[in-house]
Amino acid sequence: MTDQLIQAIRHDDRPRSADEQLRRRAAAVIPGGMYGHQSAVPLPPEYPQFMRAGLGARVWDVDGNEYVDLMCSYGPIVLGHRHPAVEAAAAAQAQLADCQNGPGPVMVELAELLVGTVQHADWAMFAKNGTDATTMCCTIARAQTGRSRILVATGAYHGAAPWCTPRPAGVTAEDRANLGYYTFNDLASVTAAAAEAGSDLAAILVSPFKHDAGFDQELVDPEFARGVRELCTQAGAALILDDVRCGFRLHLGSSWEPIGVLPDLSAWSKAIANGHPLAAVLGSGAFADAAASIFVTGSFWFSATAMSAAIATIGALRAEGAIDAMDRAGTALRAGILDQAAARGIGINYTGPAVMPYLTFEGDHGHELASTFAAATIQAGAYVHPRHNWFVSAAMTDTDIAATLAATDEGFAAVQKRQASS
Amino acid sequence: MTDQLIQAIRHDDRPRSADEQLRRRAAAVIPGGMYGHQSAVPLPPEYPQFMRAGLGARVWDVDGNEYVDLMCSYGPIVLGHRHPAVEAAAAAQAQLADCQNGPGPVMVELAELLVGTVQHADWAMFAKNGTDATTMCCTIARAQTGRSRILVATGAYHGAAPWCTPRPAGVTAEDRANLGYYTFNDLASVTAAAAEAGSDLAAILVSPFKHDAGFDQELVDPEFARGVRELCTQAGAALILDDVRCGFRLHLGSSWEPIGVLPDLSAWSKAIANGHPLAAVLGSGAFADAAASIFVTGSFWFSATAMSAAIATIGALRAEGAIDAMDRAGTALRAGILDQAAARGIGINYTGPAVMPYLTFEGDHGHELASTFAAATIQAGAYVHPRHNWFVSAAMTDTDIAATLAATDEGFAAVQKRQASS
Repeated sequence: MTDQLIQAIRHDDRPRSADEQLRRRAAAVIPGGMYGHQSAVPLPPEYPQFMRAGLGARVWDVDGNEYVDLMCSYGPIVLGHRHPAVEAAAAAQAQLADCQNGPGPVMVELAELLVGTVQHADWAMFAKNGTDATTMCCTIARAQTGRSRILVATGAYHGAAPWCTPRPAGVTAEDRANLGYYTFNDLASVTAAAAEAGSDLAAILVSPFKHDAGFDQELVDPEFARGVRELCTQAGAALILDDVRCGFRLHLGSSWEPIGVLPDLSAWSKAIANGHPLAAVLGSGAFADAAASIFVTGSFWFSATAMSAAIATIGALRAEGAIDAMDRAGTALRAGILDQAAARGIGINYTGPAVMPYLTFEGDHGHELASTFAAATIQAGAYVHPRHNWFVSAAMTDTDIAATLAATDEGFAAVQKRQASS
Repeated sequence: MTDQLIQAIRHDDRPRSADEQLRRRAAAVIPGGMYGHQSAVPLPPEYPQFMRAGLGARVWDVDGNEYVDLMCSYGPIVLGHRHPAVEAAAAAQAQLADCQNGPGPVMVELAELLVGTVQHADWAMFAKNGTDATTMCCTIARAQTGRSRILVATGAYHGAAPWCTPRPAGVTAEDRANLGYYTFNDLASVTAAAAEAGSDLAAILVSPFKHDAGFDQELVDPEFARGVRELCTQAGAALILDDVRCGFRLHLGSSWEPIGVLPDLSAWSKAIANGHPLAAVLGSGAFADAAASIFVTGSFWFSATAMSAAIATIGALRAEGAIDAMDRAGTALRAGILDQAAARGIGINYTGPAVMPYLTFEGDHGHELASTFAAATIQAGAYVHPRHNWFVSAAMTDTDIAATLAATDEGFAAVQKRQASS
């Protein structure tokens, strides 16, 4: 990227007319104008709602404004947008067949590849949504154990079906009647919830680290992870790892492998096919019969194109050393951001793994400073998020990191200005 | 297709080694060897599990055997496999972006197109699975009414989440605590179920016709449809039409438009993007605020490629007169099949719409004759199903129909032979 282009995208007069026009049309035919995690309605007005294109670590909105992408489509993009090998694999498969009367050979190849890549996995099943995968894990655990109760961490996000969606509208009490709650990283709270479930404990569902939107992130305490594993083993319950958001971004395997803790079942989606729609459940052999006993399916769950993309994604993650590349980029980003905040005397918390960081400001209880920071940063050409963790892709070059830090410095300047004036 | 090719695919020695090898590999890494509606495990051994390619009304298995496709991927393929305009639209969008930080302009265009195409629709929301769409309809109805109870027809298929999957493994009593049951086409049974729900009636969920797998199909009685509509209106409950399987195959609008009955909410998937992964909920203006109040989302729900494919699909359905073309092909198929059965003195029921027929044999309570028929028919080159309705696509030519009927005649010959020997 030339300096001229950096200047161009930092200019406050970025065109926004196409986005505004689309928002007006959307308001007439989409409830609330937009819904779900990609709604820009609750974001600062500097955020575009509609995106046009992506390539590598860059994305463009519908008005042609360019951004370094620190959200990666909220996780799915791990190798960068339109990765050549992934797109070539998907296009080649699409030339033959995608959705058919039966799966293609790629389904077997992908299942074998996942079993060979993820330590705890003896088998794989595929679906479309992360919610499909977490829900399937719960159903398999119940089928295996003949019990009902599933323990989840208070505030954790495991999808958007009635049993787990974070907003209560349209949800009945019965949808959650079989959940119990514990506090992430607090083993005593898990033990208490398991005791309350008693002989009805089917599973404990847990994220690799605490990444609840809007809160500082918390890495897992290995003692907690080992304790939860032991508790499940003792109780004959399933340990379910929700690797939907983290999977293949932290480690080329399930995310607790580096601390030596293996789940019985794991839920995957987002990054496994670099943006192509796919989810997976992986499980240990002891749960295979239970997995075969449940009836789950979807019209597009056997479609070949996304599976081809997943095979190419896992191949490229390995061939390109993408996990390490992301970690290096994320570490450089963290160092730069910490320096910038310190230089301006701004108190921040920058939490979570380097590749999935979350930035908050001290005392910023209403997220006002985070919004100020994000608005100025996206205005300056880096697509971050004010209330959700960011994602670093393997496509981030040194130039991209420099451009991001140039933008975040504008963000910190805006925060400093706001603090000075208040 | 040449006569020589017809002979080739009718030959009993069709190669099957690639399929068998893949099945062996799948047995090691996929629970039960396969799962869901595309598992060939419960089908006669003449069925391939793995498919290689599709084009128009033809599909090929992994051993290169060619079939006229009467299943259309269990519904998604409506214009024929790899329809040029649909694939071109999808490929062009994929060159820009698919899964991004926000939706593309195609999301607004598709919502506008659906609102302009489906009479009852004032708005649209998108998802990935038919189950997503039926579940969302229920959640919206509950949010709108503040009530819990949803009435469904006994035996109806509305998806494969715990609240609706047809197999009980892993399902808890609470998952279905808020369902009530009625009999399709029996208005008195709906009235009784609604009375039982009393002031807790949130919605009545209904399929356009009775298409429960394994049972003769039943077209809707217009008096029943009008009665259910009236009952919902009187009770302040939502009428939800599950158009996932039928939508855009029976009518270019919601499937009860021809009988003048409009739902409040409708669920769509399968055919709306000719095989690309997409689902939709359409609703009337009165339900827009409730729809905006629920939190539903998915990592790939805003992806642009499938939406581009849907826009091209709806355009081609209209431009090619596809609904009429399917009906003509389905009507010719029905006439031919009825003639064949009559000529051999075989008693059959051939039920449902011409484009979604289901064939059963009189007295065939264990589906043995249906299996015999299906095995011989697929062996002879037409991919039908023994226990599920078939699907006719707009790509069916007279040659395809003739080839299908040549195959079904082999099927009836096998049934006749079995009946004679028993």
